[in-house]
Order: sequence, then structure tokens, then C-alpha cells
Amino acid sequence: SRNIRLAVIPGDGIGTEVVAEGLKVLEAVGGKVETTTYDLGAKRYHETGETLPDTVLDELRGYDAILLGAIGDPSVPPGVLERDLLLRLRFDLDHYVNLRPVKLFPGVETPLGGVRPEEIDMVVVREGTEGLYAGAGGVLRRGTPHEIATQESVNTAHGVERVVRYAFDKALSRPRRKLTLVHKTNVLTYAGDLWARTVDRVSLEYPDVESDYCHIDAASMFFVNQPQRFDVIVTDNLFGDIITDIGAAIAGGIGLAASGNINPERTAPSMFEPVHGSAPDIAGQSKADPTATILSVAMLLDHLGLAEEAARVEQAVADDLVERQTGWSGRTTQEIGDDITARVVG
Amino acid sequence: SRNIRLAVIPGDGIGTEVVAEGLKVLEAVGGKVETTTYDLGAKRYHETGETLPDTVLDELRGYDAILLGAIGDPSVPPGVLERDLLLRLRFDLDHYVNLRPVKLFPGVETPLGGVRPEEIDMVVVREGTEGLYAGAGGVLRRGTPHEIATQESVNTAHGVERVVRYAFDKALSRPRRKLTLVHKTNVLTYAGDLWARTVDRVSLEYPDVESDYCHIDAASMFFVNQPQRFDVIVTDNLFGDIITDIGAAIAGGIGLAASGNINPERTAPSMFEPVHGSAPDIAGQSKADPTATILSVAMLLDHLGLAEEAARVEQAVADDLVERQTGWSGRTTQEIGDDITARVVG
Ligand SMILES: CC(C)[C@H](C(=O)O)[C@@H](O)C(=O)O
Ligand SMILES: CC(C)[C@H](C(=O)O)[C@@H](O)C(=O)O
Repeated sequence: SRNIRLAVIPGDGIGTEVVAEGLKVLEAVGGKVETTTYDLGAKRYHETGETLPDTVLDELRGYDAILLGAIGDPSVPPGVLERDLLLRLRFDLDHYVNLRPVKLFPGVETPLGGVRPEEIDMVVVREGTEGLYAGAGGVLRRGTPHEIATQESVNTAHGVERVVRYAFDKALSRPRRKLTLVHKTNVLTYAGDLWARTVDRVSLEYPDVESDYCHIDAASMFFVNQPQRFDVIVTDNLFGDIITDIGAAIAGGIGLAASGNINPERTAPSMFEPVHGSAPDIAGQSKADPTATILSVAMLLDHLGLAEEAARVEQAVADDLVERQTGWSGRTTQEIGDDITARVVG
Repeated sequence: SRNIRLAVIPGDGIGTEVVAEGLKVLEAVGGKVETTTYDLGAKRYHETGETLPDTVLDELRGYDAILLGAIGDPSVPPGVLERDLLLRLRFDLDHYVNLRPVKLFPGVETPLGGVRPEEIDMVVVREGTEGLYAGAGGVLRRGTPHEIATQESVNTAHGVERVVRYAFDKALSRPRRKLTLVHKTNVLTYAGDLWARTVDRVSLEYPDVESDYCHIDAASMFFVNQPQRFDVIVTDNLFGDIITDIGAAIAGGIGLAASGNINPERTAPSMFEPVHGSAPDIAGQSKADPTATILSVAMLLDHLGLAEEAARVEQAVADDLVERQTGWSGRTTQEIGDDITARVVG
């Protein structure tokens, strides 16, 4: 059905602004959209001390999908909203696939000289529920010369295998059929061994997918000087965080980078959000580019089986991006949203 | 004195080839150099099972410095030579500063379009003796569906403070006097808190240094689209590993990236090595660029108090790099070494 029940978490900073444009496009694409807005984020935290009440989390489980703007504010100690709100959503809703396309649209300027759009076209499948994001670790003798602070990466066969399988399926669905595991097996020997063995084993079931391996340091370099090297990448939570920001940089900036936090088994709603943060420095000024959110809306539509609608949104963005080459002169957030909406409708 | 007692570890793959050129330049720069070569690496491991015998490590302590080519070979399981040889050297000789300049020399092509050399000029001070490189972690139920593999980042006040102080000193010695801590404090809350508090506290003693903070994901992006943002960076072992490879990419490639594993208190010799690996695919073909090793030799000279000689080597490299713009036509490893040597002498 084309009736989408959507939970909306605008969040902090520019989150509200970009989400409004995402919804504009979503509503324009046709079908019925019922939205419920949740005021989670810095404001609620300051007013009530709450980050993500259990009752709210339970309610969120009832929706078809979640659209999130951005979370985070300098007035809140680092980690509080990230861990207790954003990461709690990803973890508790079992978003084990954090899907991040890295694609250079025609007409978009990349900092890489002489690279053509077709040379940057990959998808990063970032693990979303374990690794160093588990929050494991601790501190002893805080504030003394004998302080020791640890941080633990937790990796399970269950967690690694399911995301690796997803990545192989994704690779199979793309023309190049290539999968690269990115890790640091020569230093993170325990975790790296689990990841490498899993990819080797699962690869036997995918004879049509070519798989290889690349250390995170080399991969980060290749993003800059050989982006053509990659098709689908599978990697852990932290490495995925880092390379998708490099990916955003080479594909035209953080204003264009979309993501989906996917629960492939659909035991809970998936959540779509731009890769960028809340950007408090430009919040409330209509300066934010809503394109990343709009592309995240396209991913949302695709996830809900509305492939035609998703393609329509992506095409509208692509057309707008081509036009920006010549016509770009500082449109506001709302104007960009309006222009893309007009293309979706028209 | 200008008498340098040097331990040389050519290592694997192209290591031997580039080290030979580094030594050529070192000998040409004047003064006496006594070298002793240690055959550590894949070959010795296969022949004797040894990576770094204790007796060899003890002997190495007696030198003024160590020059290392590259360690690693696909015939050895991942991690063996890295952990038991390369990292053991860095750890046991207390190389807590892994110093990696990221500098775009005039004439060198960068993948970043339109960036001028003076816009890429930073120094990464990477912690070298702890963090995720500690090797802490383990595995349970290996090879079963219930496998769990952990990897622990260990950070101490002692370890963090000393490298942060070094970085502030470094920043103070540079015209811009700017220091950026790169970490992921919003997710790695225990370790990040220790790093951030340490930088805050030490910064009070350096009122002339401007310090700021950047998440690793954002920093990785800024390396690509705003490299001017950075002067001195201080960061942990793993983040430093990653961003220095991005740094190598933007500053003309891994063939030019030098590094020093520094023991600032000189309780043991420091070790200088190119950032690149052993590159088995091109080993023995005289295709490797020895420039990274030669620039590492300049760092070695500088560390030993031979600033004038260091500057001479760096200038010779700079001149050679300018010439490459027009004259480059596939010189061999040895020819590049010869040409730079001639400039050092001339
Ligand atoms: C805000 C932060 C916790 C988050 C992450 O590290 O995953 C962000 O950087 C991202 O990539 O979505
Ligand atoms: C070979 C490897 C262990 C090493 C590291 O990760 O430190 C290398 O990548 C480097 O940067 O010197």
C-alpha cells in the first residue's frame, strides 16, 4: 500500500530545517503519508532530562519507517545524545546495516580533480550495532596521573555474518558485483580475523561476486586517489563512520550524503537520515542543503517497496544538481526543497 | 659529533630497495655513518621462526637511530610481523610519537583539484605506543556461530599526556601555532574524555597555541575538502594511522610520505621509516619511489641534531620533485636515489 505511517524526529540544529524539506518531497511523490513528530534531542534533554524514554521507543516500533534530521548540540556533554538517543535507536531497532551510497552525481563538483561521475559509484555497508560503538569500556582513577581509559570493540559471528551477507546480496544486485572488506586485520587481529574469515566463508556462496580486502588506511587513501577501485564495501561501525565521511567529501560534500539505518528482517522500522550532523553554526539560517535528507527519503521509499517513487525522487535531485552548475546562487533550504518538489510533481 | 651509528632494517619487499637509496643519500650528506644491517622480516621468519629475538632488540638499543624499510609479506599470516616485529620495535623502544608530516611540495600533483602547495602543510603527531594497537582483546568460540572477538583500546594519562605535550611544543615551533585534537569523543566516551581533558589541561600552559577539536570522521573529510584547516594534529594510534594515509594521498601519494617513530627522551633510539608498506606486487622491479625513505632520512638527521644536513636533504628532494613535473619519465628507484644524491652533494 502507498499509505506510509512515518515517525519524524527532526532533532537538533539544522535537523528541523532539512526534515521539513524531506517531508515536502515525500508528500509530493504521491500516496498517503501520516506523520507523527517526536521532539527528541537537546531541547527535550535540557527540559526534562530525557533522551529516549522507553515508552517512546516502544511507540516508534509501530511505524513503517523513521525519518531523522540530526542529533547533537554543544550544550550537551559529548556522547549523551549520541549514545542514549541516536545509537540507542540504531541498536534497539537492530539497524545492523547502515547503508551509505557514495555516488558522484553529474554536475556536482568534487574536490578530486579530473574525476568523472561514473568513477565514484559505490555503496558502503557499514555495520550498525556493534564494534567500538557498543559503548563497552571504562575508566579508572579518572583525573589522576594514573588514569586508564579503555574502549572495547565487540564483534560477534552473528553480527558480522548478517551484515556480510547483506553486503554480498547488495554486490550481486549491482553491475560490477564486487565486494571489498575494509578492516585492519594486521593490527586488530582478533576482530579482523573474525571479519576476514566470515567474508571468505560467505563468499563461497556467492561465486559471481568478486571479493577482496583492503586495510582501512589504504582504503582511505584509495577513496582519494583511486575511488574507481570500489563497488560495494563492507566494514565495521567505526571504519564505516570514517570512510563514509571521506565518501561524502569526494562525492560533493556532506550536504548530499544520504543514509539508511536498515533492519533488513523488518522486525522494527528502519531509520533514514542525512550523514551530516546538526551544524549548530548555521542552524536557523535557511543555509543548510536539504538534498542529503531528500536522498534519504528516496532510500526510505525504496526500502518500503516504492521503487518507482524512489527513482522519481532521485531523478529530481539529479536534475536539480545538474542545474546547480549554472543556476546555483545561494538558494535557501526551502527553495531547494521547493525546486526538487516541483520536479517530483512535474 | 657527525658520526652516526645506524641500525638498518631493510625488511620485506621494496623495503630493501628504498633503504639502499636512503643510505646513499645519508652517506652523501657528509659525516661518518656506520651501518649494521639486520635481516628481520618475512625471510627470517620463514627460515627460523624468529620475528624479533630479544638479543637483537637489546643490540638495537645501542644505536643512535634505526632506519627501517617496510615490514610485511602475504606469505605470513596477518599481524605476525606487524605485531611481533614492527609494533614491538615501536612499543619496546617507547616510540610514543609517530611523527608524520603532511606537506605538498611544489611541483607535486595532488588529486585535489586547485589546491596550492602552501595549503597542505601540517604535521600529524600520532600516538605510537597504546590505543587499539596495544593488542588487547581476545576471541571466544572461534569458528562457531557463537564466536565473539574483542579488541580493546587502552589509553593512559601517562601515554596521552606525553604525546599531547610533544604536540603542543611542535605547534609552538610552527608559524601558525595551531593544534587540533582528532578523536571521536561522542562515541568513544571513555577514551575521548581522557584525550579531551588532557588537551584542555595542557593547553593552559600554552597560551600562544590555539587548540581546537575535530571528530575523526569530520577530520577525514576536511583533509579532502579543507586541508588548510590543519597545522599540527594530535591523535591516537589508529586514527593517526588512517589520517596519515589520507594525508599521503592528498600530498602526492604514499611514495612521498615520511615518518619518524620518536622516543623524545632518547631512552632508546628513534626509528625512521616511509609510511608505505612492502608492496610485494612491485618488489624487486626497481619501480618503488625511494623519496619517502629519503625524506625519512632527513627526519633522522634532524632528530640527531644535524638540522643543516636535514635541510639539505629536504631541499634536494624538493628540487627533484619540481623537476619531475617536466622531466619525469619512469626513472628507476636507483636513478631517483642517484639524482637526489647528486643534488645533496652538488
Ligand atoms: C553522531 C555520530 C554518533 C554518528 C556516528 O558516529 O555514527 C555520525 O557521525 C554518523 O556517521 O551518523
Ligand atoms: C603495517 C602497519 C602495522 C602500520 C600501522 O598500522 O601502524 C602501517 O600502516 C603504518 O602506518 O606504519
